[in-house]
Amino acid sequence: MSVHERIQPESTEISSHEVGEFVAINGISCQDSYRERFETLFKGRAHAIDRAPGFRRMVVLKPIKLGGDYLVVSFWDSRAAFESWSRSPEFLEGHRRGFEDVRAAKERGEAPPMTSRMEIYDVLCE
Amino acid sequence: MSVHERIQPESTEISSHEVGEFVAINGISCQDSYRERFETLFKGRAHAIDRAPGFRRMVVLKPIKLGGDYLVVSFWDSRAAFESWSRSPEFLEGHRRGFEDVRAAKERGEAPPMTSRMEIYDVLCE
Repeated sequence: MSVHERIQPESTEISSHEVGEFVAINGISCQDSYRERFETLFKGRAHAIDRAPGFRRMVVLKPIKLGGDYLVVSFWDSRAAFESWSRSPEFLEGHRRGFEDVRAAKERGEAPPMTSRMEIYDVLCE
Repeated sequence: MSVHERIQPESTEISSHEVGEFVAINGISCQDSYRERFETLFKGRAHAIDRAPGFRRMVVLKPIKLGGDYLVVSFWDSRAAFESWSRSPEFLEGHRRGFEDVRAAKERGEAPPMTSRMEIYDVLCE
């Protein structure tokens, strides 16, 4: 190990060990009438994602602003790890109850109870 | 400790110990010409926030989408802890270089090199 390597700041190591290098944020807009159900589903989530290769952690954020979006923030080793998860059968199973709610609303000719928008990021630093 | 308390899921404890109960996300829109400077400032940040009471951790996210916003995500014990920090002299000092860049642009009659928008959240679950 060279002197240069030894003086690297520790924060780089924390970044790679604790939050990974890649973050996906799913912003979820909920109808007011669906918020309680949405929160119940997430609090009782299956935790299947916790066993996905390259997954580090996730946190679900509830907006303080009235009518704001919920954010589902997940931390990954890499973009490839996230994309593997999002194509997996476990992903579909983990989202089954929410997807069913959306489909049922569609079948009743109603607007979807929630809509979502995914944004992706690299971790710049901690 | 009652039986009921002992069977609480561990995730509740992880939430309160590692990411806290409150999250602030500062979304920063940068002019393309300012992105390199913005990243340099954050990578060399003073870390004054790390010593703020009630601070848990932060992560700076770089958008993968062209022209997207950077996100500065900070995790706190409480909203009060975050608000104390945002009113502190250390907050001003920590943002000094960025604030100076914005003021200098204004003095030259130019558009600000970056604009920001703060959103705040409670941690619903992990």
